Amino acid sequence: MRQNIPENAAVRLSLYLRHLRKMKKDKVISSEELAGFIRTSGARVRKDLSFFGQFGTAGKGYVVGGLQETISKILGLDRVWTIALVGAGKLGRALLEYPGFKESGFHTEIAFDLDQSKIGKKVAGVPVYHPYQMPKKIRQQEIDMGVITVPAEAAQESADLLIISGIRAILNFAPATLIVPSYVKLMQADFTSQLEIMAYFLSHTREEQILIKRPQWR
Amino acid sequence: MRQNIPENAAVRLSLYLRHLRKMKKDKVISSEELAGFIRTSGARVRKDLSFFGQFGTAGKGYVVGGLQETISKILGLDRVWTIALVGAGKLGRALLEYPGFKESGFHTEIAFDLDQSKIGKKVAGVPVYHPYQMPKKIRQQEIDMGVITVPAEAAQESADLLIISGIRAILNFAPATLIVPSYVKLMQADFTSQLEIMAYFLSHTREEQILIKRPQWR
Repeated sequence: MRQNIPENAAVRLSLYLRHLRKMKKDKVISSEELAGFIRTSGARVRKDLSFFGQFGTAGKGYVVGGLQETISKILGLDRVWTIALVGAGKLGRALLEYPGFKESGFHTEIAFDLDQSKIGKKVAGVPVYHPYQMPKKIRQQEIDMGVITVPAEAAQESADLLIISGIRAILNFAPATLIVPSYVKLMQADFTSQLEIMAYFLSHTREEQILIKRPQWR
Repeated sequence: MRQNIPENAAVRLSLYLRHLRKMKKDKVISSEELAGFIRTSGARVRKDLSFFGQFGTAGKGYVVGGLQETISKILGLDRVWTIALVGAGKLGRALLEYPGFKESGFHTEIAFDLDQSKIGKKVAGVPVYHPYQMPKKIRQQEIDMGVITVPAEAAQESADLLIISGIRAILNFAPATLIVPSYVKLMQADFTSQLEIMAYFLSHTREEQILIKRPQWR
């Protein structure tokens, strides 16, 4: 159960789970149906699940409730994960109020900000501290993950402080490339970069390459 | 100049550009230095740039200003891209105020929301309309891209409306898997999924796998 699976499989497992959560727990689903949701193949689904032993009965599919539970366990979602937010500005506040986080078992427990008017108060129910308290507070409250929502020029320093405090998984929203040690999992939530890739796509796709007729609005 | 390059190259070009923007325009940079910023190889940098002809002089590197301009052109960033935002809630508002967007040439011109108290008014300087006006407004204002920040259950409908309105590139922030025609570029800004992958990483990395000694805080 503890062998290493490729990260892409973890991404797909997370997507399967999203669909299973919407379904009735006692329903039975085939690997082909599950594959259809994320446009992959039934064989790929079976392979992703086979990393963790056999589920379901040959030709009968998987019971939704059981599969949901198993995938949750594989992804480590059968527990609550605690988060420290670095940067309690507008984006940070929007994230604190984003319903998806808490629902999925991710609880933001503390926030850090340099703004004196915020320190010692609460933003969206979460207490805000000065960054110099980070190592102490993160250890005291046994925080698991860091989320960075500071301006780009403060992002590397924020990551360094989180790592010094013992954090090994960081989600960075600042438009900056961060350097972290290899034992830290860094994920980049970089909207601007995604928009640039969309711009590239639009610039290099000619109208005549679009074979499907676009619907017309009357 | 118009041949198709792999999407991964577009991602790297976007990252090179981020670093070049911070440098003096008349400086000369080698492919190895550029590679060091994003932890790739000099050979990879040269290959990425060679898709678009030769730049720089053998053994002398690239002049920052010129390279910046060329990569911007390749990515289609030598113009302004207009955006329609679907969902003017807290996350939508935080994005409207995110400085990175406008600085990089992405201008949000209009927003759509079902909330009667917002329709006809402005949120962060951007006028809000009812979604039924989407096809008309998007065509009138020649909007290029759509950004979805509605709740998960309204995300597919929002995407459908954008596509009917002629939009071919969508950045989705809702925690939902969307189905779009193959001629539409869909990018997913899915924080919850990123947190789940971090949870998976933390669950499956044992302390003894961490060979580098973590710094201790005194």
